[in-house]
Amino acid sequence: MAKSNKETMKNKAISIYLDYMASVSANPSSIHQLGVEAKNKLQSARKKVAGVLNTRMEEIIFTSGGTESNNLAIQGVVLACREKFLPHIITTNIEHPSVLKTFEMLRGRKLAEVSIVPVEENGIVDPRKIKREIKKNTILVSVMYANNEIGTIQPIKEIAKEIRHWKKNLTPSPLSLIRRGVGERCIFPVFHTDAVQAVNYLDLNVETLGVDLLSLSGSKIEGSGRVGVLYKKKSVSLAPLFGGGDQETGLRPGTENLPEILKFADALEEVQEIKEKEIKRLTKLRDYFFAELQKVSKTVFDTRFMINGDIKNRLPNNVNVTFPKIPSDLLVIELSEKGIMTSAKSACESSQADGSYVIKALRGDDDKEVGGVRFSFGRQTIKKDIDYTVEALSAILTKLKKWYD
Amino acid sequence: MAKSNKETMKNKAISIYLDYMASVSANPSSIHQLGVEAKNKLQSARKKVAGVLNTRMEEIIFTSGGTESNNLAIQGVVLACREKFLPHIITTNIEHPSVLKTFEMLRGRKLAEVSIVPVEENGIVDPRKIKREIKKNTILVSVMYANNEIGTIQPIKEIAKEIRHWKKNLTPSPLSLIRRGVGERCIFPVFHTDAVQAVNYLDLNVETLGVDLLSLSGSKIEGSGRVGVLYKKKSVSLAPLFGGGDQETGLRPGTENLPEILKFADALEEVQEIKEKEIKRLTKLRDYFFAELQKVSKTVFDTRFMINGDIKNRLPNNVNVTFPKIPSDLLVIELSEKGIMTSAKSACESSQADGSYVIKALRGDDDKEVGGVRFSFGRQTIKKDIDYTVEALSAILTKLKKWYD
Repeated sequence: MAKSNKETMKNKAISIYLDYMASVSANPSSIHQLGVEAKNKLQSARKKVAGVLNTRMEEIIFTSGGTESNNLAIQGVVLACREKFLPHIITTNIEHPSVLKTFEMLRGRKLAEVSIVPVEENGIVDPRKIKREIKKNTILVSVMYANNEIGTIQPIKEIAKEIRHWKKNLTPSPLSLIRRGVGERCIFPVFHTDAVQAVNYLDLNVETLGVDLLSLSGSKIEGSGRVGVLYKKKSVSLAPLFGGGDQETGLRPGTENLPEILKFADALEEVQEIKEKEIKRLTKLRDYFFAELQKVSKTVFDTRFMINGDIKNRLPNNVNVTFPKIPSDLLVIELSEKGIMTSAKSACESSQADGSYVIKALRGDDDKEVGGVRFSFGRQTIKKDIDYTVEALSAILTKLKKWYD
Repeated sequence: MAKSNKETMKNKAISIYLDYMASVSANPSSIHQLGVEAKNKLQSARKKVAGVLNTRMEEIIFTSGGTESNNLAIQGVVLACREKFLPHIITTNIEHPSVLKTFEMLRGRKLAEVSIVPVEENGIVDPRKIKREIKKNTILVSVMYANNEIGTIQPIKEIAKEIRHWKKNLTPSPLSLIRRGVGERCIFPVFHTDAVQAVNYLDLNVETLGVDLLSLSGSKIEGSGRVGVLYKKKSVSLAPLFGGGDQETGLRPGTENLPEILKFADALEEVQEIKEKEIKRLTKLRDYFFAELQKVSKTVFDTRFMINGDIKNRLPNNVNVTFPKIPSDLLVIELSEKGIMTSAKSACESSQADGSYVIKALRGDDDKEVGGVRFSFGRQTIKKDIDYTVEALSAILTKLKKWYD
């Protein structure tokens, strides 16, 4: 042993990391000092997120992303009452694939009975139609807060109200008692919302929304890390999807992605500060875009284009339109050629040859070859971008019109 | 529309991102130019990883981490043959919690019959004992490549050989035909290894190892992103754990964590370049540490300390020891006080009050209050750190000895 070590040993600042097998950087589950510091950072991030959602730290679960959050909410509730009875779950026909496909998967694996409520022509679901589907074995209703393709905002508070009414009128039955037992103090159905697309512009207060489960994703927040969050009301019982360590109270095993979680929490707080201003700015930009598109459509086609989804009850950053006869996939590629990045359907189902199931849900199968083009804005989007896009689109539509006439 | 736009439109370099709802940065599933570029980057990362594992791109699945990779491998194989017969799966008693708890979970959910083979006193499993457990309904054997607490290296090639022998001597039975049908060209059992701790020092060639499934985690590689990888041989059928988009050929839905995946692929390649040199350097350091610890133990206790796990067949960066009567948890805390970060058991089970189940597996329940202290090295670890640690440990042991005598 070198003599110099005796001196450095008195130096409080010394830090020798001999815990590489826990993680190459500090692991929040380690009991040594760096582990405790990491744990504190994790908890402080959790507190920030809980603050934005107006709930408690214990009700925040960090996951790998929106898809996992939705799966943990839906599969978690279903698996928690496995073998007690066949549960029934309800959703709409324009949910994100991570909800719709999970419903399909649970039906396919004979773990749940499934009802899918169609939205109205404007892309918004009627809360009374949700209520009508609730049965004695219904354990979950999952309705997205805002749609990822057409940006329509669902009446979450109203749906929560309908569910509460149903619960109030429930006469105790053997099954309802079992259900109470399964969910402890929770009476089914519980209400989940996929708030992944809502995060930048809508109210995230779970209390006023009246939801029991809410999913968020970092990939939709600027400056955020790539992680997900699931808010879970304390009274709701969930089964974990993974076996493993006891991170996230055992509900989400696996070393927490601390650097990304820290970025997420800060970015989520930042969103709250600029929200009002961004809503105003983007709503103006969106409506300007709609008006300019109208002029283009009149000039090129001598007719109006079609707006997909309710014109008012939609996110301020979403424009989704269909031009007569022109396939949306082609428009996206032509726009990309001019340096403008848009989309024709959810990126999550892009490798499928079929058109958008969301657009189909609004108008039926007849225009499946046309679809819709989604323009979605963010913090960097300015009027100049819109002007350039309108001009580019005008040229593209004029060119394409000849071929599709 | 501003006149100036006409000019910028001719400028090829222009890029207007109107796809914020896909992701705030480019999403590999988007069909526009930036999406295609992201996809290309993702595939180039996949190619790098496949290269290191000596396999094909199509056999690499990106996940959120090691826990998810292990769960996807184990649950995925079990769920893929659900309802056809009750599958039997085999593992050892010193696996990581993401394997052991997943086995327990599948047993608890009545989805699988489980056999747990105990390791020998040196922390290494006997391949013949694995073979002895294989039955006609065995679909999976999962044995870790190197242990996370004691660093022992399991005889993966020999286990693969025993499994091949069993398959060779299999007389066709109705059940084996069903099994062939389930796994297409794959005959059960398939062989999975959790290579999370092996990644920096051991051979990762899946061909020579003879494995069908192999898990990796970025959190154990310096400079890597926080993602996981599952190698899956083409012939193995897996059921996805999440419903969602069709990323990762539908086996792992959810937007790919591209920035982290890119870091992972580069870091994994870098590991290969420095591997040989690091093995030599760390083996020397490890053996020096063992020798120094021996001197300390002799001086303080007048007896040898106990080395947990085989002294030779262990990772070059792992030292795990037990000092007579001194509780390991306490040692970790005392060492932390002196700025030295170590661990007493897997970080993934730190919040449990019980001692290490790995140490217990080596010696039975009698020394459960003592456990073992794990010192694990990495690229930054140098001889000076070891000298300081030995000196600190000597002082701590001298102090504690009085209390535990």
